[in-house]
Amino acid sequence: MRIAIDAMGGDNAPDEIIAGALESIEFLAEDDQLILVGPQDVVEPRLPSQKSRGTTIVIEHAPDRIGMDEPPVESLRKKPKSSISIAAKLAKRDRADAVISAGNTGACVAALQMRVRTLPGVNRPGIAVVFPTFEGPVTICDVGANIACKPINIYQYAVMAGIYSKNLLGIQSPRVGLMSIGAEDAKGNEVVKKAREFIKSDKKVNFVGNIEGRDIFNGVCDVAVCEGFVGNVILKLTEGLVDGLFKAIKHELLEEKLRLAMKFKPIMERIYKKYDYNEYGGAPLLGINGTALICHGSSKARTIKNAILAAKKCNNENINGKIVEYLSETSVRTPNGQTD
Amino acid sequence: MRIAIDAMGGDNAPDEIIAGALESIEFLAEDDQLILVGPQDVVEPRLPSQKSRGTTIVIEHAPDRIGMDEPPVESLRKKPKSSISIAAKLAKRDRADAVISAGNTGACVAALQMRVRTLPGVNRPGIAVVFPTFEGPVTICDVGANIACKPINIYQYAVMAGIYSKNLLGIQSPRVGLMSIGAEDAKGNEVVKKAREFIKSDKKVNFVGNIEGRDIFNGVCDVAVCEGFVGNVILKLTEGLVDGLFKAIKHELLEEKLRLAMKFKPIMERIYKKYDYNEYGGAPLLGINGTALICHGSSKARTIKNAILAAKKCNNENINGKIVEYLSETSVRTPNGQTD
Repeated sequence: MRIAIDAMGGDNAPDEIIAGALESIEFLAEDDQLILVGPQDVVEPRLPSQKSRGTTIVIEHAPDRIGMDEPPVESLRKKPKSSISIAAKLAKRDRADAVISAGNTGACVAALQMRVRTLPGVNRPGIAVVFPTFEGPVTICDVGANIACKPINIYQYAVMAGIYSKNLLGIQSPRVGLMSIGAEDAKGNEVVKKAREFIKSDKKVNFVGNIEGRDIFNGVCDVAVCEGFVGNVILKLTEGLVDGLFKAIKHELLEEKLRLAMKFKPIMERIYKKYDYNEYGGAPLLGINGTALICHGSSKARTIKNAILAAKKCNNENINGKIVEYLSETSVRTPNGQTD
Repeated sequence: MRIAIDAMGGDNAPDEIIAGALESIEFLAEDDQLILVGPQDVVEPRLPSQKSRGTTIVIEHAPDRIGMDEPPVESLRKKPKSSISIAAKLAKRDRADAVISAGNTGACVAALQMRVRTLPGVNRPGIAVVFPTFEGPVTICDVGANIACKPINIYQYAVMAGIYSKNLLGIQSPRVGLMSIGAEDAKGNEVVKKAREFIKSDKKVNFVGNIEGRDIFNGVCDVAVCEGFVGNVILKLTEGLVDGLFKAIKHELLEEKLRLAMKFKPIMERIYKKYDYNEYGGAPLLGINGTALICHGSSKARTIKNAILAAKKCNNENINGKIVEYLSETSVRTPNGQTD
C-alpha cells in the first residue's frame, strides 16, 4: 500500500509528522510505501540515510505549503505545488492509495474533492470523526466537508459511517441516530425530515431515529449523522467544552490544596488518555475513491502513526469496496442521479 | 407586575413550581402578583390559606396539561385549556405581564408565538440561554424557537441578546460572535454569510466576527448568535457532555480510592454550583410583546424563584422597550417588512 503523507501539514510539521511516519514503519508490510510530500531540503535531512530507508520511505518534492488559516480554495489555486495539493494529485494519478494530512482541513477536503472522484453511488463525501465517549466510541459524520447538505447525502453518511463503525471499530450492528432537536418524527428542519425518510426506508440500517445533542454521550447510538455545519459545531464545541471544564476543575483544585491537586493529576491524565481521539489517528473522508485521513492540526507523531495504521486498516477491510457494494444494492436513491 | 406561572410544567410540577413561587414572595413588591395556572384542585391545596396569601398569589384554573413529549402544535390544538395555553392567553389579553413555564418547550414557544405578538421591528422571536463558562456568562440565541432561520432573524438576535446581556448580566459592551465553522469571512453557509453582512453593517454592535464551537468557552465573546437548530444542538450537547465527563471522572476516581473520591466530591459540587444555569432562572423568549421565561424541564423550586426574579428584572430594566427603540433606529432591515 502506498500512503502519501503531507509532511508540512499541521502545527507540529514537519518534525512530528515525519517522526510519526518513522514510528509506523515497524508495523508496515514489506511492500508498503510511505511517500512524504514536502520540500526535499526540509524532509530529506530528517530521514535516515537513503540506503537504510530503502524504498519504504520516499520523498515527493512539494516546495509550497498552505498555512492553517489560509482560505482553502483560493490557496489551492495559488499554490498548485503545495504539499496538500501534490498529495491529492498523487492519489488522483493512482500513485498513492491513501492520503494523510494534519494541515488546513478545508484545503485538504477541497483538494481531494477536486482531484479524487467520489465512489460510484456516492453524491458527496463526508468527514467522519470518532468521539471516544464514556459509553463507547461514537462516529459522527459529517463534521464539515459538506455544508450545503442534501437529504440523500445524510442517508449516505449513515451507510458509510455505519460500514466504518462496523469494520474499523468492530461494532457489529451500529445503531444510527439522526441529529435533530427532539426525538419525535416531526422534529427537525426540512433536510432532516427528508433524510429521516430515506434512512427509515432502508431496513438494513439499524436506525434509532432522531437524536438530540445530549445523546452523543449517553450510549443511545454508535453513529450520528448530520449536515457538515452542525457536525463541525459539535466537534469544536466538544473540544472547547472539555478544555474549559478541565480548566475549571484545575482552578478549583488549586484553590483547595496543592496536594489534592497533585493527587488528582494522574487521574485527569488517565481520563485524557482514555478519551483521547488521537488514538483513532484522524478522521476519514468517506466516499472518495481512495483512502484519506484528516488529522487534527495539533497532531503529534503518535497521531500520524495511528493515522497510517488506520489507513492500512481501511484498505485491508476494503471499506470502499463495501460502500460501493452497499450503495449499488440500495433502493434509496434520487431519480436520475440527482443530488437531492 | 403580574407573572403567570405554568404550575403544571416540567418534571417536578406541580410541587416544585409552586414551592418556587412561594419562595419568591419575599422578594416581590407589594403590587406584584403571581398567577398560578393549573387545575384549581391541584394548586389550591398546595398554597397557604386564601386569607394569608391575599392577592399576591391567585389561581387561574386550567384543567389540562401538555406532557413533556407531546407534539407541540398538535397538543395545543387539542388542549386549549392546558396550563401552557391558558398562561399564554393571559399574556395575550393583557392579564399577565410575564409568563414562566418549565413545561414542553416547543408547546410553550408555539403558544406564545401564536397568542402574543412580536415586538414592533422584530420578525421572529428567539430563545436566549446563558451559559455560565469559566470565562464568564455567554448568552446564546437562538436555541430552538426558530429552525427556519433567515439572516435578518440572526441580526435581530444579535441586537436582542446584546441588550439582554448588557442590562441583565451587566456586561457593558457585549462582544457578539456569529456561530460558524471558521473565523474567515468566507466561512459558513449562505444564511450565515448574509447574517454576517447585516451584523457588520450595524456599527453599534460590538461584533467580533465568526466564531467556532470552541469559542463559546474561551472568552472571545459575550453573545453568540445562530439559527435555532444549531443552537439547540449546542445546548443539549453541552448538557450531555458535562454529564458524561463528570460520570467518567467519578468512575476513574472510584477505581482509584474511595477516600480520594470523597475528597473530590465537594470540589465537583462547587464546580456544579458555580456553573449552574439554574442560577439564571430560565431562558427568555426574546422579541415577543411581553416577558416570557422558559425553564428547563428538570427545574426545581430555586430555578422557578430565580425565573420570577429574572422576569421582574426584565421588566424593571425595560428590555422590551430598549429592543423596540433600538430596532426603530437601525438601518438594517429588509425592504417592506419582508422576513429575509
